[in-house]
Parts: sequence; structure tokens; C-alpha cells
Amino acid sequence: MTNWMDIVLSRRSIRKYKPDAPVSDDAVERMLRAAMAAPSACNQQPWRFVVVRDRALLDALADAHPYARMLRQAALAVCVCGDLAAETCFGGYWPQDCAAATENLLLAAHAQGLGAVWIGVHPYPAREADVRRILSIPEGFVPFCLVSVGVPAERKPPSDRFDPAKVRIDRWAPSGSEGASGDTP
Amino acid sequence: MTNWMDIVLSRRSIRKYKPDAPVSDDAVERMLRAAMAAPSACNQQPWRFVVVRDRALLDALADAHPYARMLRQAALAVCVCGDLAAETCFGGYWPQDCAAATENLLLAAHAQGLGAVWIGVHPYPAREADVRRILSIPEGFVPFCLVSVGVPAERKPPSDRFDPAKVRIDRWAPSGSEGASGDTP
Repeated sequence: MTNWMDIVLSRRSIRKYKPDAPVSDDAVERMLRAAMAAPSACNQQPWRFVVVRDRALLDALADAHPYARMLRQAALAVCVCGDLAAETCFGGYWPQDCAAATENLLLAAHAQGLGAVWIGVHPYPAREADVRRILSIPEGFVPFCLVSVGVPAERKPPSDRFDPAKVRIDRWAPSGSEGASGDTP
Repeated sequence: MTNWMDIVLSRRSIRKYKPDAPVSDDAVERMLRAAMAAPSACNQQPWRFVVVRDRALLDALADAHPYARMLRQAALAVCVCGDLAAETCFGGYWPQDCAAATENLLLAAHAQGLGAVWIGVHPYPAREADVRRILSIPEGFVPFCLVSVGVPAERKPPSDRFDPAKVRIDRWAPSGSEGASGDTP
């Protein structure tokens, strides 16, 4: 339990990687296994993954996306894609499902001593179009995010983001006394 | 590492709970710490949490939501809310950020031996309105999901959802030979 919480609480966004330090296929498979273990609405599992190791493609993604410079040093990227046709039971949940899968993927990278960072793509149409073009993603699938992965060349201390002011009990505020709990919304 | 992967791979959606079996405030705080350790776009942390232990409110949520019957037996629910005003840097990412926080919350429940299930609310307007009304959530905050939590009264084996057919390498398909990798999109 403590060990597990340490993984969750110590994960940080890592954008600097040791150049040319390899990340094994086994490590990537563990990340993908963790991602696909995420829950999804109606268990629709509306996700696909493109593992990008090709240097020219990584550089093209770095050039196309305004916040993806770190891909130039990354060992690989994982592009998480939404599968619209998988939503046969409930529609509209695929970004949430892909986000849960992405968080598991990030945690699995960190648990293996790797560094990773989530690079947002969806819901920005221009970013989706660029990633779609570079990775030849067909219609019906939406580039959701990129995850940059490598062997860390930076260390960051755990960031304590816990804020009790963001927690309410039972109701946001007692009826008729909005804000009475001391936390102005 | 193995221990951590076991947590991720063995987490299941648990909808049956031992009646009247308590869940401590400390356990809930660990879940909230894990949730708030999630990454978010621009580190905006656009989330709030309502911890619902009041039986009348849990029953009202169970009545209002078509898939929330399990709240009648749950020790508590956590309503994860998006904070629209927190998106000062980038807009539109809050559902992804809340989903990552929710996944961490579910994992922290499971790691402590608790059972939990993610109940979708956003983006369904009627569900958002019902939860907003019952929990007195003010405008500017969006009820994103409910997480039902209790001491498990059911056991489920790990569900292996890993599907190598959902993984592509470098490009979706080689240019001009869509589907050549054997996985029709």
C-alpha cells in the first residue's frame, strides 16, 4: 500500500531524457498492459495505441506540436487514440476512458523508473489534424494525446498537490448558506 | 514494481458492498491525495471533490441516476467536479484531468482493499443537472462523475484486457497499404 501510494504521489512530468538511452519493448508492453487495464464506460475499451520509435516521426511530432519539443530526446512516444466505433453502448465517454488509460500508462512508466509526460492533443482540432497526418491515423479514430517516454535525465521531488479546501462533505454548501464552509467556490 | 502492477491489473469495478461496513476518513483522504496527485494540463488542477456519506443523499443519487443503484449499499460516494474557472492557461482539458484524478482515486481505493466503481455523469446534461441539484453544486463547477465506495462483498478475478491488436508501431499502417499490419481499423 505505502509502496503503491509512493508511486502515485511521486510521479512527475519528466521532459528531459538521457540521449540514446533505450527503453525496452518489455517496458513498453507493461505500460500498454496498465493502460488497457483502465476502466471504461460499459467496458467499451475505446482506445488504440501507436508506439512511435522512428526518429523522423518523433521529430515531426516535435515540430508540429507547440509543446512537444521533448520528443526530440525521447526514446519513444505513445499516441493514445480514441476509437469512436467502439462506443456502441454509451457515446461521449471515450476521452475520459482514454484519459484513465493514459494515467495508468504514465504510472507504469514511473513505476519502471522511466520518465514520461502527457502531451495534450484532443480537443484541439489543429493538433489532432497534425498528429493524424504524421502517424497516418484513419478517420474514426481520434488522436487523443501523446505520451513522451525516456530514461530520465532530470529528477523532481514529489509535488504535494493535496488541498483540503478542494474537498466538501455531503453538500457543496449548506442550503441557503453558500460558502459557509469557508471555501469560496 | 510487480506489486504496483498487480494493483493496476487486478482493479475491477465493485458494485456490491458489505452493508454498514465503515470506510475510515483516513482511507478517504488517501484516495483524495492520490486523485490530486494526477497530472493536469498546465498543472491547473481543475478538480473539486464532494465526499457524500449522508444516507439520504446517497439514496437520492441512487434514485436519480440510472446506473447508480449500488449507492444504496455504498459507505460513501465521491463526486468529482470540474472547476471551469481553473482553466486559465488552456481550456477544454478539464474532463481529461478529472478522469486522470478519478483513475488514481479508484486505484487508491483498491490498494486499500476497498471496492469502487466509476459512475459516469458528464457529458450527459440530465445527469449533471440531477447531481448538481442533489449536492448543491454551484454554477462554474460541473459534476464530472460519481465514485461509489465500500467494503467489497464480491470478488472478481483480474480481467486481462490487453489486446496486442490495439497497438500499432510507428504509423497506423504503412503508407498506401492501410490495414497491412493485419488489424483492420
